[in-house]
Amino acid sequence: MSLIVQKFGGTSVKDAKRLMNVANIVTQKYKEGNDVVVVVSAQGDTTDDLIEKAAEINSNPSKREMDMLLSSGEQISASLLAMAIQKLGCPSVSLTGWQAGFSTTSVHTSARIKDVNPERIRSELDSKKIVVVTGFQGLSKYDDITTLGRGGSDTSAVAIAAAMHADLCQIYTDVEGVFTADPRKVPNAKKLKEISYDEMLELATLGAQVLNNRSVEMAKKYNIELEVLSSLTNKPGTIVKEKVKMEKMLISGVAKDTDVARVSITRIPDQPGIAFKLFSSLAAKNINVDVILQSIGRGDDTKDIAFTVPKDKGKEALKTVEDFANNYDAGEVQFDDNVAKISIVGAGMESHAGVAAKMFEALFEQQINIRMISTSEIKVSVIIAKDDADKAVSAIHNKFFPKAT
Amino acid sequence: MSLIVQKFGGTSVKDAKRLMNVANIVTQKYKEGNDVVVVVSAQGDTTDDLIEKAAEINSNPSKREMDMLLSSGEQISASLLAMAIQKLGCPSVSLTGWQAGFSTTSVHTSARIKDVNPERIRSELDSKKIVVVTGFQGLSKYDDITTLGRGGSDTSAVAIAAAMHADLCQIYTDVEGVFTADPRKVPNAKKLKEISYDEMLELATLGAQVLNNRSVEMAKKYNIELEVLSSLTNKPGTIVKEKVKMEKMLISGVAKDTDVARVSITRIPDQPGIAFKLFSSLAAKNINVDVILQSIGRGDDTKDIAFTVPKDKGKEALKTVEDFANNYDAGEVQFDDNVAKISIVGAGMESHAGVAAKMFEALFEQQINIRMISTSEIKVSVIIAKDDADKAVSAIHNKFFPKAT
Repeated sequence: MSLIVQKFGGTSVKDAKRLMNVANIVTQKYKEGNDVVVVVSAQGDTTDDLIEKAAEINSNPSKREMDMLLSSGEQISASLLAMAIQKLGCPSVSLTGWQAGFSTTSVHTSARIKDVNPERIRSELDSKKIVVVTGFQGLSKYDDITTLGRGGSDTSAVAIAAAMHADLCQIYTDVEGVFTADPRKVPNAKKLKEISYDEMLELATLGAQVLNNRSVEMAKKYNIELEVLSSLTNKPGTIVKEKVKMEKMLISGVAKDTDVARVSITRIPDQPGIAFKLFSSLAAKNINVDVILQSIGRGDDTKDIAFTVPKDKGKEALKTVEDFANNYDAGEVQFDDNVAKISIVGAGMESHAGVAAKMFEALFEQQINIRMISTSEIKVSVIIAKDDADKAVSAIHNKFFPKAT
Repeated sequence: MSLIVQKFGGTSVKDAKRLMNVANIVTQKYKEGNDVVVVVSAQGDTTDDLIEKAAEINSNPSKREMDMLLSSGEQISASLLAMAIQKLGCPSVSLTGWQAGFSTTSVHTSARIKDVNPERIRSELDSKKIVVVTGFQGLSKYDDITTLGRGGSDTSAVAIAAAMHADLCQIYTDVEGVFTADPRKVPNAKKLKEISYDEMLELATLGAQVLNNRSVEMAKKYNIELEVLSSLTNKPGTIVKEKVKMEKMLISGVAKDTDVARVSITRIPDQPGIAFKLFSSLAAKNINVDVILQSIGRGDDTKDIAFTVPKDKGKEALKTVEDFANNYDAGEVQFDDNVAKISIVGAGMESHAGVAAKMFEALFEQQINIRMISTSEIKVSVIIAKDDADKAVSAIHNKFFPKAT
């Protein structure tokens, strides 16, 4: 007998039919003799509908009240799923975040889980019930309901799995697993059997958006095996774990992220600490800088710096850099949000030379100009024009995963 | 400075516009220097919509899960109202039933309040916030969310008023107060300035449906002054309290209840304990019997008994009585749900003779046949044909409150 945590997103529970489908998946695992804890998101558009209701009343509602409002969404889906499971003849109980023992920080709308006390869940499992837990929420030390922010239900599931030493944590979604590229764009994209936490983290950050990043970090920290799979097909998904077999693959995937903007500044005085001053002024405004490129000094005691930021921080970053350029008598400041970041990720590249070169070759063959390059141990990213993004992903994918395969 | 509890029903908070209207009423009392606690029901049809969602999934859902589901309705309206109050520039916080300290029995969907620990409410009031509390719900000793059943929000409001020794408990609804008869049916019905708890209790039981009965019982027990008033007009309502001035009125109102069925059985053996046996068999099935009429023995050692029950228990009552009739070799059993109960209520009738006679005279003048009569110290009820009900209410009302007034 195993303890299995299963998480279902909003699309998987959007209506009565889908809820019954989920109840079928859940009860099957239960009937095989497992203890089953289910974590659910709010149904379909519920969260958006509630946000709209709030906006009609107050364009700047208190975050504490937003959490009170939004947490009702999972309370509805959890109780309905418990009813669906009961309909199939299995005992079930739904628990809110606070009933399930979730303690969080008190940062409303983006709280972090501090602790899960699984006492109540365990006692319900001991009485042979399937336990349905509201994802995305918890309780602050002030006894106020908090939410974890979008995608937080993944993290809720992993936190329960960690606290209860679950044997497996299954994240059900609307895709069949993690693919070597977006299967809607690259028809011959392959589903991965396995992927390591680090690769998954790089892919999540890079816009693959299969799993919430915090949930993967937590799974890595507590060594919880994750499975990403679809609630609509009966197929095995992708296992996310520490060590994976290499499957003779250099890279595990090609990811595209169009949520980036590029800011560049020329002819900054080439003096010690100048980069520190630039980036600390950005950090002070809570702007996360990603890829950074610094030119080699050009001999006139100035240098150029370019970097990328999330698109919604673009204007703010531009303003900050313009102020900086004025203060230091630097040259021109440029801004471009018509760019995309294309990345390849793979634990295999650590031990194989030429991976980056292979990627650049694919881009060269398509005459795609590389604006910036950034590399880590298991990742190579390039910044290119946004219009070239899909073509680039296909070309790179075909280079590493030839169509014949 | 006073402590005021205000309760708003589902119609009063049904949309953004109505919520802003309620926020105006609430903040006005707050700006006058009062501590204000607001109790809200779920918005408009929310509860019915949630019940329908459940029915799509499971025709016989567990009551524990229904409470989990339905309690989300007040959580939504309470947080939205807090946002509306904040929009008007006043600090506000919403609290769920358990946050507000409501302990209840664990009878799901019809729990009773055991205790209200107002510690949290008090500390929020101390920090100058308007406190919005979800009505209708609480927490069982098993840490499960419970609901009080329909109309329970009135009781929630009175319970807070009692626990905190509030100066006034205002029940906002869609009528302007308690009237001498239903103003939609009797155009010259008068709004009462005051009414006693006992009269209000008789009127509530008799189908006037202005206030939930349990809330009036609780107000009487803890001597909480209630005011029933409309959230749409700015007029004083009706005060419900222990001692009222008589205003020279014999009766305070005429009420109609069409939710009744009449069951009769003839020629029961006239032996000791026979009535006890009949009514205890009904009680065993949880059927509340209201008006009871027993014939005077007719000399053949048999008697007839007739009684009324709530309409939805009619068929079950009929079955019970038929079984009883077979066992005791009694005569014919009759069933009629085309009846109505018309009642007059008034503390004044205790000290005035002829009140019942005046009522019967009004019915006689309209040629309305009286099927059964029941009286208490402050009430006279008659059972008549349902088709005559509205005519009877008008006739009785005009007899006691002549149109000239």
